[in-house]
Amino acid sequence: MFSNDQKSAIEAARAAWTPTRRLVVPALEEAMYEPVSVLDTGFVRLVDYMGGDDGIVQGARVSYGKGTKSTSDDRGLIRYLMRNRHTSPFELAVIKLHVRAPIFVTRQWFRHRTASINEYSARYSVLEKEFYFPRPEDIAVQSASNKQGRGTTLPPEQAQQVLDLLRDDAARCYDHYLDLLNEDAAGGTVDPTRPSIARELARMNLPVNIMTQFYWQINLWNLLHFLRLRADSHAQYEIRAYADAILGLVEKWVPLTFGAFRDYMRDATLLSGPALRVLRAVMAGTPVDPKAEGLSRREITELATLFPEIAPRLNGG
Amino acid sequence: MFSNDQKSAIEAARAAWTPTRRLVVPALEEAMYEPVSVLDTGFVRLVDYMGGDDGIVQGARVSYGKGTKSTSDDRGLIRYLMRNRHTSPFELAVIKLHVRAPIFVTRQWFRHRTASINEYSARYSVLEKEFYFPRPEDIAVQSASNKQGRGTTLPPEQAQQVLDLLRDDAARCYDHYLDLLNEDAAGGTVDPTRPSIARELARMNLPVNIMTQFYWQINLWNLLHFLRLRADSHAQYEIRAYADAILGLVEKWVPLTFGAFRDYMRDATLLSGPALRVLRAVMAGTPVDPKAEGLSRREITELATLFPEIAPRLNGG
Amino acid sequence: MFSNDQKSAIEAARAAWTPTRRLVVPALEEAMYEPVSVLDTGFVRLVDYMGGDDGIVQGARVSYGKGTKSTSDDRGLIRYLMRNRHTSPFELAVIKLHVRAPIFVTRQWFRHRTASINEYSARYSVLEKEFYFPRPEDIAVQSASNKQGRGTTLPPEQAQQVLDLLRDDAARCYDHYLDLLNEDAAGGTVDPTRPSIARELARMNLPVNIMTQFYWQINLWNLLHFLRLRADSHAQYEIRAYADAILGLVEKWVPLTFGAFRDYMRDATLLSGPALRVLRAVMAGTPVDPKAEGLSRREITELATLFPEIAPRLNGG
Amino acid sequence: MFSNDQKSAIEAARAAWTPTRRLVVPALEEAMYEPVSVLDTGFVRLVDYMGGDDGIVQGARVSYGKGTKSTSDDRGLIRYLMRNRHTSPFELAVIKLHVRAPIFVTRQWFRHRTASINEYSARYSVLEKEFYFPRPEDIAVQSASNKQGRGTTLPPEQAQQVLDLLRDDAARCYDHYLDLLNEDAAGGTVDPTRPSIARELARMNLPVNIMTQFYWQINLWNLLHFLRLRADSHAQYEIRAYADAILGLVEKWVPLTFGAFRDYMRDATLLSGPALRVLRAVMAGTPVDPKAEGLSRREITELATLFPEIAPRLNGG
Repeated sequence: MFSNDQKSAIEAARAAWTPTRRLVVPALEEAMYEPVSVLDTGFVRLVDYMGGDDGIVQGARVSYGKGTKSTSDDRGLIRYLMRNRHTSPFELAVIKLHVRAPIFVTRQWFRHRTASINEYSARYSVLEKEFYFPRPEDIAVQSASNKQGRGTTLPPEQAQQVLDLLRDDAARCYDHYLDLLNEDAAGGTVDPTRPSIARELARMNLPVNIMTQFYWQINLWNLLHFLRLRADSHAQYEIRAYADAILGLVEKWVPLTFGAFRDYMRDATLLSGPALRVLRAVMAGTPVDPKAEGLSRREITELATLFPEIAPRLNGG
Repeated sequence: MFSNDQKSAIEAARAAWTPTRRLVVPALEEAMYEPVSVLDTGFVRLVDYMGGDDGIVQGARVSYGKGTKSTSDDRGLIRYLMRNRHTSPFELAVIKLHVRAPIFVTRQWFRHRTASINEYSARYSVLEKEFYFPRPEDIAVQSASNKQGRGTTLPPEQAQQVLDLLRDDAARCYDHYLDLLNEDAAGGTVDPTRPSIARELARMNLPVNIMTQFYWQINLWNLLHFLRLRADSHAQYEIRAYADAILGLVEKWVPLTFGAFRDYMRDATLLSGPALRVLRAVMAGTPVDPKAEGLSRREITELATLFPEIAPRLNGG
Repeated sequence: MFSNDQKSAIEAARAAWTPTRRLVVPALEEAMYEPVSVLDTGFVRLVDYMGGDDGIVQGARVSYGKGTKSTSDDRGLIRYLMRNRHTSPFELAVIKLHVRAPIFVTRQWFRHRTASINEYSARYSVLEKEFYFPRPEDIAVQSASNKQGRGTTLPPEQAQQVLDLLRDDAARCYDHYLDLLNEDAAGGTVDPTRPSIARELARMNLPVNIMTQFYWQINLWNLLHFLRLRADSHAQYEIRAYADAILGLVEKWVPLTFGAFRDYMRDATLLSGPALRVLRAVMAGTPVDPKAEGLSRREITELATLFPEIAPRLNGG
Repeated sequence: MFSNDQKSAIEAARAAWTPTRRLVVPALEEAMYEPVSVLDTGFVRLVDYMGGDDGIVQGARVSYGKGTKSTSDDRGLIRYLMRNRHTSPFELAVIKLHVRAPIFVTRQWFRHRTASINEYSARYSVLEKEFYFPRPEDIAVQSASNKQGRGTTLPPEQAQQVLDLLRDDAARCYDHYLDLLNEDAAGGTVDPTRPSIARELARMNLPVNIMTQFYWQINLWNLLHFLRLRADSHAQYEIRAYADAILGLVEKWVPLTFGAFRDYMRDATLLSGPALRVLRAVMAGTPVDPKAEGLSRREITELATLFPEIAPRLNGG
């Protein structure tokens, strides 16, 4: 995944410590520059960060001024901020990552507009021969229940057929890409008498599972929003793998915020007004018709899954 | 490009006129819903708009309050706003477009973060068999001078070879895509005993010249910024074709703003501090060494191109 | 509040109907240009809009492509989008308002960064002698329980004293403002031999309850976010009055979205992970200690308020 | 300006150095936490930063990939990026400041929407008795030529009268504010039998030259945009004083970027298309009528100021 030159550069960067007056998070320093492997040939690599739980608390306290004298401890304040979606203190922490991922994953990733992105340019440079191919156990059929998800995994031989087909097409397309560029794998010209098609044109032949790379910088609040959507069971597995890797870094970086995120974002549930009315009626032992209260069939099912104890009541029991 | 159903729907939408109290721009109404063809199988189609030159002027005048009594005419005010980059009145006009474009073009397009995008989902639906293939006269070699551009066009037979290769790979990849989906071209299941691979997985085999479509909504200021970068000779030809089509709509929509854009953005040049000093010295007949003033070789060349009359003086003449 | 000239201009604008091919929302056309009174001297006035429930549905369907054939009705789709926070279709609707409000209200208002603002400039023009003074029944003491809220209302005579003081200070400061400007109320120069202090300086003497005005344009999603925070009991009464007025327009504009907003945003409650565990245990009749599950004292109180039936169980009963 | 407690806290923060693997900018570390005085009672204080010239270069190079082998030195690359407005690498550097400024200045400041702000809350806490009063030499009359600027300075006695009036009104309004709060200067209750008006209400009596404070975090590109507008002769003097102080920090932080900003943003001039045509004609000795080319009277004057040598030619000479 990395050349020896790159490995040496990373080692050198990790070996260099400089004193700073800024807030430092030792657990995150430990992770710096080291690539975290994602999918077969991808990675996420922490390149820089600013702030941490302490800075979030400090930023929040400027708002409260003298009024904070009685404020409880940092953990309580951070949980309060998260619970009430006071987002601006969380914006004060920033992270910069170096990522390698397949193009179809970046297309989902870059829909999040509140980040700074510097991506490898296929107009300027030649894309390397690195593709994403799923593990056999990740190849699955179209889900019957979820229009945008996968269902059961394929048996090994059938998965292997899929992989063979993907590998063949990727290899052929990449060979033709080099052909159009009139370049060999080492970047040399193959035949000086033949034209070298412009890179910006030749790349149109490449499939969306080819790898690209980019620097991605985002503040903590926007990152948590990204993670809530992408480290979620409804996200496509491939981007979820990246989100999970980033979540590991977030836990090291801002442990208090991470705990608050887990309790008030990731594991939290939004109860709609109608669902709340139904729930109250059930608790009070009052008869209630979820449909009449405005719940759709899907919502009734989800509420019953959330509270299995009252499922019979929800289903007209 | 459009099915008969779609054509009828467009005709019906164009036939329906409703009275409104809002600002209406008749020249733009004329263009509504009608697709403007771009590249071979792409289009740009105006779906909605809000505001116009009049609304921009009105928005600017709220800032000036009573102070505007003496303000000159609308054209002068718009040109003044544009020239001094008073951007907020231009944000008050908004446009919504329906676009079909190849994926590699949308990857450049969506780097502009200040727009609202609703794109066709290849997780949810099957992509149609529509690809972009350049016209032979648009196939060119890598530029020698511009690392991210193209140079001379290929001779017809060589261009044809490139096209054959692109078409072959696109067709094969798409066939394999349908194969993985276990679907025929009409969307029916081919073999009920075979697995249908999840759409989100199968699509990874498709090359980036496949067409996608999206709704794109952006305010006029951010649109002009987009157009300055993308309707420019440094932009890749394929996205420039879309930018040019949009520019045609802008001209109908806000003729005064369009004129100001042309004079103060598109055709304007930024003279750096050092370039300004050099130019003044040249005009005053004072000896001047552009390099000593801080101009790079490239900047000297560009200044000489801008003002051919003084080129000899810039090159040490 | 409005001069006769302004009233005539509004009447003229309301009288002018023009045919358009765009989506029109008749109920909102009814409200166009007409100021809705807010506080004593403020207003909100609809100046332009784009899109509506139909446009939101149309934008969402481009994402689903062929996959939407089976999609349920518009209402169901809009509720689904809102419930799952699929925000981009809601971004496709845009509204433009003309607002007059006190400066201290705009300071809260403009913290919402995702809108376009054109505000009256006190550098360019003289601010009018219009201040906000609360109604006696809105003057209240500092809340004991809520550090940023108000508690009980003042008795009438004490309220009157507060108002007298506010009115006196506002009048004196404004007189001095005119004094510094060397202007009379009609905008004429008082004494040509005296200096007229620059407007940008003289205005620094004005209190934050002076009225300013601005054009505010925002897309529907960001507007709903604003309304959830500002049409809420935790918001300061004065900005809530504006949010309530805007909510009235939203209901006319996008009735389906308004219903979804009410059920899934305004009346919805976020149940944290720990609160969910506690609730399940209570329902299952299992012993549970809310504190041990991680709920703070405040959270236990709030949960007990939400579900009074189980309050005893939450409080260790 | 700072209490002894605050001074000690700053000293302690400055004394604490911790090793980090991140990019460190020693010249900026020197400035950390130390307030830079602005206006009479304001300040700007560097609280945190991330990145620097090196990080910008590194971020840019990921885009160029292998293609950068031949890239010139860092200075050349940064100047190239700035000149061509390749903004994303500059977004990778971030700065966090703690600022105290008058409310009327923050109203201009917060119009820049691309920053994260945590401001002192006058709903939550009592504002301190700190106001901005201009130095006598900064008190000037309304400019005759510039509708939003100041002209000549007042004679000392007249300036003193203005100051007396501003000081009187500020003192009276603040006294009444405390009165409404029923608080003394030390924060104690004055009369327990009297009502304490809610802070969110009482503050409406305060003039806009009262000081507030906030944390402000912004990336370098957006900061440079802010500085170009606010460290400019057209900006109001009071916000310019802050912009100048921040510019001093930027020069220490990113010296290469600062140089590029100076040459390609601050000292650069935009030549419109028509101005360019006029200039070329003048250089070629061809007769040209600036008005016929589309230049307004103001533009002709500005062009003549920029190039005094050709002024006679522009004015029909």
